[in-house]
Amino acid sequence: MKKRIDTAEVAPVVGTLYPPPFDQPCRARARAKLGDVAGLTQFGVNLLRLPPGAWSAQRHWHVGEDEFIYVVSGELVLVTDSGEEVMRPGDCAGFKAGDENGHCLQNRSNADATVLEIASSRGAGQTTVAR
Amino acid sequence: MKKRIDTAEVAPVVGTLYPPPFDQPCRARARAKLGDVAGLTQFGVNLLRLPPGAWSAQRHWHVGEDEFIYVVSGELVLVTDSGEEVMRPGDCAGFKAGDENGHCLQNRSNADATVLEIASSRGAGQTTVAR
Repeated sequence: MKKRIDTAEVAPVVGTLYPPPFDQPCRARARAKLGDVAGLTQFGVNLLRLPPGAWSAQRHWHVGEDEFIYVVSGELVLVTDSGEEVMRPGDCAGFKAGDENGHCLQNRSNADATVLEIASSRGAGQTTVAR
Repeated sequence: MKKRIDTAEVAPVVGTLYPPPFDQPCRARARAKLGDVAGLTQFGVNLLRLPPGAWSAQRHWHVGEDEFIYVVSGELVLVTDSGEEVMRPGDCAGFKAGDENGHCLQNRSNADATVLEIASSRGAGQTTVAR
């Protein structure tokens, strides 16, 4: 069995389980779950595609899981307590488990943006929204 | 404190601790330890730069840690028991903990290649070389 995975061939999960009205900015987000395709269980890796206007999530932080993002293409705005920061290809950021500084990525540009997202699998998805 | 990390500003670790002659193909590899810069501890994230001729490592597998690679730029050859596979930007692969199918990336092209490497931190770096 070949090891190479072509990310363009991985069908993404589109949308969000947020209830209205919180779902609105996240409806067009698309996540290709690359780590799952590779059979990994210790951390997740998603290729996130955000069309113009879309957000990665509502601002949130994780109680038990480290998280990391790396911008592959396009331009995004990272929103945290540090303020708003423009993120371009080659920029990255990390979010330590338990750090109560909520974050999200917003695509305010006119083109798609793609981001590699990594998060560990320790805390079974405990997420705290807001802040 | 800003959250954005510009990978171009992170000084890489260049070279290898392999003894001769195993060090030879890995001497020019350069790793920017992005996860460390972000203060993460549950997994590591490196931006690996391989000049022409350089290898990521000798063929190896990990007893306790999942590993994942995503090609950001350039062209590489992934060597595993599955044979040799050419990897280009957008291609990725995962290596499940305990899977005794050793892997390495070799840059046989005439240009630099960059790869995002992720590995979990559970097993304190147990690595088995060869295969």
